Amino acid sequence: MAKSYQEAIQSIKPLDETAMQAARQRQDELTKPVGALGRMEELSIQIAGITGNPRPKIKEKAIIVMAADHGVVASGVSLYPQEVTAQMMHGFLAGTAGINVLSRHIGARVVAVDMGVIGGFEPHPNLICKMIDFGTKDMTQGPAMTQQQAIDAIESGIDVVEAEISKGLDIVGTGDMGIGNTTASAAICAAITGKPVAQVTGRGTGLGDEQLADKVKMIEKALEVNKPDLKDAIDVLAKVGGFEIGGLVGVILGAAANRIPVIIDGFISGAAALIAATLCPQATAYMIAGHQSVEIGHRAMYDHMKLEPVLNLNMRLGEGTGGALAMSIVEASCKILDEMFTFAEAEVAGADKEVK
Amino acid sequence: MAKSYQEAIQSIKPLDETAMQAARQRQDELTKPVGALGRMEELSIQIAGITGNPRPKIKEKAIIVMAADHGVVASGVSLYPQEVTAQMMHGFLAGTAGINVLSRHIGARVVAVDMGVIGGFEPHPNLICKMIDFGTKDMTQGPAMTQQQAIDAIESGIDVVEAEISKGLDIVGTGDMGIGNTTASAAICAAITGKPVAQVTGRGTGLGDEQLADKVKMIEKALEVNKPDLKDAIDVLAKVGGFEIGGLVGVILGAAANRIPVIIDGFISGAAALIAATLCPQATAYMIAGHQSVEIGHRAMYDHMKLEPVLNLNMRLGEGTGGALAMSIVEASCKILDEMFTFAEAEVAGADKEVK
Repeated sequence: MAKSYQEAIQSIKPLDETAMQAARQRQDELTKPVGALGRMEELSIQIAGITGNPRPKIKEKAIIVMAADHGVVASGVSLYPQEVTAQMMHGFLAGTAGINVLSRHIGARVVAVDMGVIGGFEPHPNLICKMIDFGTKDMTQGPAMTQQQAIDAIESGIDVVEAEISKGLDIVGTGDMGIGNTTASAAICAAITGKPVAQVTGRGTGLGDEQLADKVKMIEKALEVNKPDLKDAIDVLAKVGGFEIGGLVGVILGAAANRIPVIIDGFISGAAALIAATLCPQATAYMIAGHQSVEIGHRAMYDHMKLEPVLNLNMRLGEGTGGALAMSIVEASCKILDEMFTFAEAEVAGADKEVK
Repeated sequence: MAKSYQEAIQSIKPLDETAMQAARQRQDELTKPVGALGRMEELSIQIAGITGNPRPKIKEKAIIVMAADHGVVASGVSLYPQEVTAQMMHGFLAGTAGINVLSRHIGARVVAVDMGVIGGFEPHPNLICKMIDFGTKDMTQGPAMTQQQAIDAIESGIDVVEAEISKGLDIVGTGDMGIGNTTASAAICAAITGKPVAQVTGRGTGLGDEQLADKVKMIEKALEVNKPDLKDAIDVLAKVGGFEIGGLVGVILGAAANRIPVIIDGFISGAAALIAATLCPQATAYMIAGHQSVEIGHRAMYDHMKLEPVLNLNMRLGEGTGGALAMSIVEASCKILDEMFTFAEAEVAGADKEVK
């Protein structure tokens, strides 16, 4: 019984100012110069505002990795063959992929979701099947999916995150897998931010110069053929998006509707965040930009949403890997707020007020 | 029986190129596009070269926090009274300070060392006493310490890190506490990098504009009075340094001599790294720059040593806090190298070689 996406949006409220003020005050009283922990302080205060708890604790953590295939791969936009999407999904289920390693490191569970991988999967205890179709259509020829499929993808994502919340969830990270999905994400980025395609299109898994030029032309063609309405995010998702991107839109909206902080990973998660923010600008308050991807369009996405990445490690893998590393830093920020003593608690002399 | 600092320097060898090549090859074969984990890949390869192990594992972790007082505080360079040094040390021992919280988060032990705090401490099971003197002299009036004290401080640091190595140590982070120590660190930075004092002197715990101008004048006076020899790092340390800075020089040299990676924390740790790098340029290969401090001189230090910080979180607390967060990322980088499957291991189809 998933929420409709409109219901989720209506449930997204402003952050709790009272909790944020209490967190700010405690941060200012901790045994350190005011502001000396910089971004760590801001993160803890944001989590206080999201959760409504002035001393939030992060214990239950999940990375939701959504996979799907992309019809645009037929136009030759990726170095890797399409079957890699399914093969990587087997890695997620076996626990051998990058996101599994990093999730174990930070103590998070990986939730793997098939949103529409060609060929599908045998039932697996760790696999959630929300398949919309066996991959999208080639967006250079027409819409990648129908409007109803776009809505179904979003509502499936809401369903997935609400199921995780029912098991216990204090923070969630987004992750993706889908050969061809930097192409869809660049198209979404260009459509919503209005930037030229060439300025937001990157090398994906490692395209050369000529292949990159071809990728730009394919995206320009897809936007020309489909003419997505930049004010209508469902239209953008349907025409040039992907099923895993739609699913992640639902994860973000569902998390925000339930006051759960959501870490945005890389370029594909950023495209989902752009759609979510266009549907509901208030949702950005629940987002933490995990890291700055090498993909050049990622910066344009963050600028559009006024988000600043926590990490910049020159990464471009997706899967939620950058978000997982950031999640541990967010958890640490809440421990600082909760466990570190104030000057009063430690009976340490404060700064000389006269000198200030 | 600590090594002499000359013995430690003689023990510092180049990184193990064979181990690094094997690590590079495995990174290129993991189930991801080549280079897609960016800095994470580089970190794991550096650790392979440091340890000589192509698949290094990081389990035993320590942050060595060294504290001392500074005579220059008499010249009014800090907002906080000098007794805060000792009071914060009590916090480290009680487990209530920022570095304790972050060390628990990453699974590292905190090693608190008294290098010369005014008043001293009662014996405590978690406190290592290597006190050189009850704080340095005021460097605006003459040398902060004698040349022999500088050498004793460094060799005490070597002793401390070698004692930790004997307990089991895979990586070490540097941390500091000492009211007035951004003044000493800025003086060291100006002396060694040759940059103007005003360009490398920051607000420390939060000085206003006038107080900052006074701090710059004090440092200029100290350099004028003492004329440290920029080619002689022991001379620089003695004339404008601090006991905890000298101790951290020893931690860095001792770690490098024993092929243990060392995470450099903030501005004070950076000053120690500058001294260590001047004594032994090869030591920089064993360093990982944990984070970029808000202190403006920190960038000049890293540029001088050609190091790039892992994190930039707008922090300026010291204690080893930025280094602790970076340590967890370094540990994660080694897990990626060791635990993530290669394409052959996962039997996933590789990239289409023809397209490449």
